[in-house]
Amino acid sequence: MDIDTNALFAGDRRMLARAITLIESTRPEDEMAAEELLHRVLPRIGSSVRIGISGSPGAGKSTFIESFGMKCIEAGSKVAVLAVDPSSSITGGSILGDKTRMSKLGSHESAFIRPSPSGGSLGGVNRRTREVIWLVEAAGFDRILLETVGVGQSEIDAANMTDFYLLIQLPNAGDELQGIKKGILELADCVFVNKADIDKTLAEKARGELSSALHYQRARTSGWQIPVLVGSAATGAGLVELMQVIEQFCAHTGRDTGPGSAFHSRRSAQLKEWMHDRIKDKMIRSFYGHPDVQKALPEVEKQVASGALTAQEAMQKLFDVYRLPNAH
Amino acid sequence: MDIDTNALFAGDRRMLARAITLIESTRPEDEMAAEELLHRVLPRIGSSVRIGISGSPGAGKSTFIESFGMKCIEAGSKVAVLAVDPSSSITGGSILGDKTRMSKLGSHESAFIRPSPSGGSLGGVNRRTREVIWLVEAAGFDRILLETVGVGQSEIDAANMTDFYLLIQLPNAGDELQGIKKGILELADCVFVNKADIDKTLAEKARGELSSALHYQRARTSGWQIPVLVGSAATGAGLVELMQVIEQFCAHTGRDTGPGSAFHSRRSAQLKEWMHDRIKDKMIRSFYGHPDVQKALPEVEKQVASGALTAQEAMQKLFDVYRLPNAH
Repeated sequence: MDIDTNALFAGDRRMLARAITLIESTRPEDEMAAEELLHRVLPRIGSSVRIGISGSPGAGKSTFIESFGMKCIEAGSKVAVLAVDPSSSITGGSILGDKTRMSKLGSHESAFIRPSPSGGSLGGVNRRTREVIWLVEAAGFDRILLETVGVGQSEIDAANMTDFYLLIQLPNAGDELQGIKKGILELADCVFVNKADIDKTLAEKARGELSSALHYQRARTSGWQIPVLVGSAATGAGLVELMQVIEQFCAHTGRDTGPGSAFHSRRSAQLKEWMHDRIKDKMIRSFYGHPDVQKALPEVEKQVASGALTAQEAMQKLFDVYRLPNAH
Repeated sequence: MDIDTNALFAGDRRMLARAITLIESTRPEDEMAAEELLHRVLPRIGSSVRIGISGSPGAGKSTFIESFGMKCIEAGSKVAVLAVDPSSSITGGSILGDKTRMSKLGSHESAFIRPSPSGGSLGGVNRRTREVIWLVEAAGFDRILLETVGVGQSEIDAANMTDFYLLIQLPNAGDELQGIKKGILELADCVFVNKADIDKTLAEKARGELSSALHYQRARTSGWQIPVLVGSAATGAGLVELMQVIEQFCAHTGRDTGPGSAFHSRRSAQLKEWMHDRIKDKMIRSFYGHPDVQKALPEVEKQVASGALTAQEAMQKLFDVYRLPNAH
């Protein structure tokens, strides 16, 4: 697959789609080309604000992304929508990618929506999400909305790939508030109470409860008081305010002051993490790609499944043929 | 740490707690002893029914486990409660382990509740959950309730460690039903609509909608029609019915017919997966434990964070000192 990087950098979306396909490819023969492409892309990245968007089912994430994305475009941005998607574990099918719920954004020339591909087993999807972010940045998109599915690992992954993390909440306080996973609230740089048009009083109540919950929490971003906004993706209320919050966040964390600022320190930490992800991936592929392991594995697996070998004994057999540099 | 396996097999809970601590230890010097313990424990495992319990926040999982656990004890079982907990990513603290919400079960001599430990980075908690299941089985507990936190990876992990997967739902149909992650519903062997005492009509409506949703779904367990029960952990309604469903499931999947049955095939597949988890773990620890990698890593990390090296170049440097058997 040949990628014309000039076309990519000029924002050609067919070339962008092709580049993403190459990066996401799991075929060994694409690996070199993908690495080479990354190498050419890396000097062009970093100019966007990467926004992670999370929220419980029913909170209205798709509608929110549609409305907020359009607001960003009206303000002169180019918007890309990507998904972090753990994928259905049985069918391997994709949960997201519902362009029909983002019809305006989906057909706008300043927007690019990438439905998540169906996932491979070795963390195939998320392994490449970071690289896809870089590709869309290199293609000139300056607001990247990274949507997560559900709660749990995909939310943590998204937080580790973005500059600003937004939690969308429904305006049911009390019981529902108790239900927000503490670990997820800890990741948030801002909370948006959506669907406030349905019940303004309830939404304000939720804002109050969230604000006091957040008051006792150490902010992920030092010195940043996490704002709780109230609004509605359906009516557009609160979206301009949110854009301002994001600007304030970028100013507060020193996005334009260059290396050493909180904004860039977070990105540096993310780059390190990316390297470690790649190392783990390479290690695991080295093991399973080893010809002697591949030869021995089926029989060993059968014996483990039947209980004839414990996993420990089975591993011993496999590491007899795959010799670790520091085997003992 | 010396483990007296006779005391463990006799159900001594202090010895059980000690054994779990050993298995969960991340200290290299405990590794051999932990392996040796597993070796002695493995012939004694397998006699329980492992039940994964999942549900959105607010569905009442803790109360459910308290009531259902007590019902199982009344029926003559010994009940262990464990947690699959992705742990708070920033503080590393544990979300679960709230014994106060399981006061009856927590103080009963036929129950054992293990709050989840705070997690390490390399998948520390879940890596050991399987082994902890075996320890409590070896100690004579025959109903293992494995509670998950939130949705996402921890639910998939739990499904991969259990025989029977139960989804607890709130009786709000419609919007809420739409919100159930398709991937999670696919894992279920049974759905329990909780809190039916609050609004019986709504609960029955939810049962209807769930039943039709499930009707179009391929069951995870071949030939098994996923039952939707309506009940209440608070009043105890539906819990005896659930115990019967679990018995029916064990009969349907051939729990007592031995190797080859669906029940045991699932366990075999889980054993294989356990081996692969251990292999990945060993590979990664081999890399980061390599003295030359440890020496080179801090400088390489710094250069990646500053952008002086791409992750790819950094990896090259590290794999120059850690030589993979099949390096190319």
